[in-house]
Amino acid sequence: MSVTAPLGFRASGVAAGIKNNGTRDLALVVNDGPSRAAAAVFTANRVQAAPVLWSRQVVSGGRVRAVVLNSGGANACTGAPGFQDTHTTAEKAGDVLADSAGEIAVCSTGLIGIRLPMDALLAGVDAAAADLTRDGGLNAADAIRTTDTVAKISFRRGEGGYMIGGMAKGAGMLAPSLATMLVVLTTDADLPADALDRCLRAATSHSFDRLDADGCLSTNDTVLLMASGATGVVPGEAEFTAKLTEVCLDLTRQLLVDAEGASKAIAIEVVGADTVADAVTVGRSIARNNLLKCAIKGEDPNWGRVLSAVGTTDAVFEPDRLNVAINGVWVCRSGSVGEDRDKVDLRPRDVAITVDLSAGKHSATVWTTDLTEEYVHENSAYSS
Amino acid sequence: MSVTAPLGFRASGVAAGIKNNGTRDLALVVNDGPSRAAAAVFTANRVQAAPVLWSRQVVSGGRVRAVVLNSGGANACTGAPGFQDTHTTAEKAGDVLADSAGEIAVCSTGLIGIRLPMDALLAGVDAAAADLTRDGGLNAADAIRTTDTVAKISFRRGEGGYMIGGMAKGAGMLAPSLATMLVVLTTDADLPADALDRCLRAATSHSFDRLDADGCLSTNDTVLLMASGATGVVPGEAEFTAKLTEVCLDLTRQLLVDAEGASKAIAIEVVGADTVADAVTVGRSIARNNLLKCAIKGEDPNWGRVLSAVGTTDAVFEPDRLNVAINGVWVCRSGSVGEDRDKVDLRPRDVAITVDLSAGKHSATVWTTDLTEEYVHENSAYSS
Repeated sequence: MSVTAPLGFRASGVAAGIKNNGTRDLALVVNDGPSRAAAAVFTANRVQAAPVLWSRQVVSGGRVRAVVLNSGGANACTGAPGFQDTHTTAEKAGDVLADSAGEIAVCSTGLIGIRLPMDALLAGVDAAAADLTRDGGLNAADAIRTTDTVAKISFRRGEGGYMIGGMAKGAGMLAPSLATMLVVLTTDADLPADALDRCLRAATSHSFDRLDADGCLSTNDTVLLMASGATGVVPGEAEFTAKLTEVCLDLTRQLLVDAEGASKAIAIEVVGADTVADAVTVGRSIARNNLLKCAIKGEDPNWGRVLSAVGTTDAVFEPDRLNVAINGVWVCRSGSVGEDRDKVDLRPRDVAITVDLSAGKHSATVWTTDLTEEYVHENSAYSS
Repeated sequence: MSVTAPLGFRASGVAAGIKNNGTRDLALVVNDGPSRAAAAVFTANRVQAAPVLWSRQVVSGGRVRAVVLNSGGANACTGAPGFQDTHTTAEKAGDVLADSAGEIAVCSTGLIGIRLPMDALLAGVDAAAADLTRDGGLNAADAIRTTDTVAKISFRRGEGGYMIGGMAKGAGMLAPSLATMLVVLTTDADLPADALDRCLRAATSHSFDRLDADGCLSTNDTVLLMASGATGVVPGEAEFTAKLTEVCLDLTRQLLVDAEGASKAIAIEVVGADTVADAVTVGRSIARNNLLKCAIKGEDPNWGRVLSAVGTTDAVFEPDRLNVAINGVWVCRSGSVGEDRDKVDLRPRDVAITVDLSAGKHSATVWTTDLTEEYVHENSAYSS
């Protein structure tokens, strides 16, 4: 179902020859309206890929007719010629759709610092346009994979019968400020661009923004939301945000369990925080602690490494009031030794770390993975 | 030579049975004066081990007669009983030296969250006191090792004939704010505590503070400087700081090449920065990028990951004016593709990454290691 679950969208995914292994590497998602309202959030990295620079301009107009996505090359750090390549891609898609290039978003993923093979890519846009169908969402999700082992898709039905669909890619470089490389969300609800923007920022701040697999922030991260309005349903913003957040959380979960080389999916819940910001700060600090991530890989409930990570933050807390539970066992109480660490069963893939700051009423959950030999191998054995 | 290179110091290292493998685990370093001026810097972690809390009080008085150091247990997150253990250790050392416990510093290293075996430790203080000699510096350096594969020592002679000696331990948990677990520096120059404090802060800010092996900040980091004044030489602060920095840089280098599981020693030199702070910020961001550290392990000159890391900082720079050299080859120029990456030879253990921000005249070097399967193995296979 993916991005074509809502009415008004067609999609396709083809093998354009950008990757040299013959698999799908180019996706096209088209909004046939009647609305083409859109919003997006982009990477917070100051080094931004050409497609990010381009799509930011496109989305600032509040309207997106279609998005072209490619794997096999990030088109980042490619200078003015790389930006021209993105522009050419948008013009090509505009031509085949008989529409304006100014309403064509572009997303790229793959190795930084190499130019895209434009002949292959432009021919691929023709092929993708010819292949557009109402059930092409899965092929599109397949085409944006890099080291992702599975295509990542989701959909939910909202009140009144509108749909939200989505696809995502991202298996490494999951990021502190925005967790995934590329996400396309679609809906047949009828909301204007400014409402979509508010709903999208609220949804991503509680989902993708709280996934931090390796602390590395991509140059290409993009989450694009397009609305066709094809059902004519005008949902309330709160209800729409809730449903959109469900889709984003579902995709976040899929990204988490498919993260490169990970053997554990770790949920870090920080409770008793003075503010939500404090809870997120503490959660992120723990999520980025390599020593803890290695310990979890080794199924060692090393709560001292949790406290070490908490201690590097400026959150409100007193060291002797910290409590830590690992998979439900309170191994640290009042900043010191708690229950017997031998009671902790770390064999399941899902790991829950709870940190009680004893400083207030707020909480937040940050997701991360363990650090494994396989992660190192995948990220050192070849360029990505 | 180590900490007993300067006149006025005796040291020893004994096997007290704190570790269960029978190796040395307790060190004692005694300043016989005539001066006992001292200064120290401690971890910036807000979760601080009992010996850090204790030694901070001791050093605030500006005088240290001796320091007791143990491996085999960090005495961190052990609550009030753990603090009492440290206090008891200082009282015991005060007794055997016929001196005040209030001038005995204590340092501990090892696993967080376990109490020390005090019977063994206190008997060890007796044994260490009986074993104190003018050439005990190497035994002391040996006794503070945890996963360190070698003892780390250094010394330099200053103008007028005074000496500075030092020992260090630290192979993991090298830290952003202070790079090593434990360092003891000694000198027979005659400087008051406030001058020692200024010199020490200047020296550590350019050495240990710029070593960032895995971004993890310890609960126990301590750098202690003790002056006996035994030569009567009163050096100028600038000259003393320069010599002290040399000793600290020598120890920093030894920590770097012995970091757990590392196969590369990486020097990240940031030039063309608007401020030194910007240069350090950018250097640290690169030093903590797991994806880059994996690439260097794989001998892949993946400069895109360098730019990604630079882009996450708030330093002054324009993305299209960034230049990056890896082992002397400018693989990135003006934010885009530069010289052929195949020219980069990453086989040597020493790796030099130079980042030119093109934003000013300032520079700084930050040192780090690669991220290897062995690092993961060492930190997941057992508690540490």
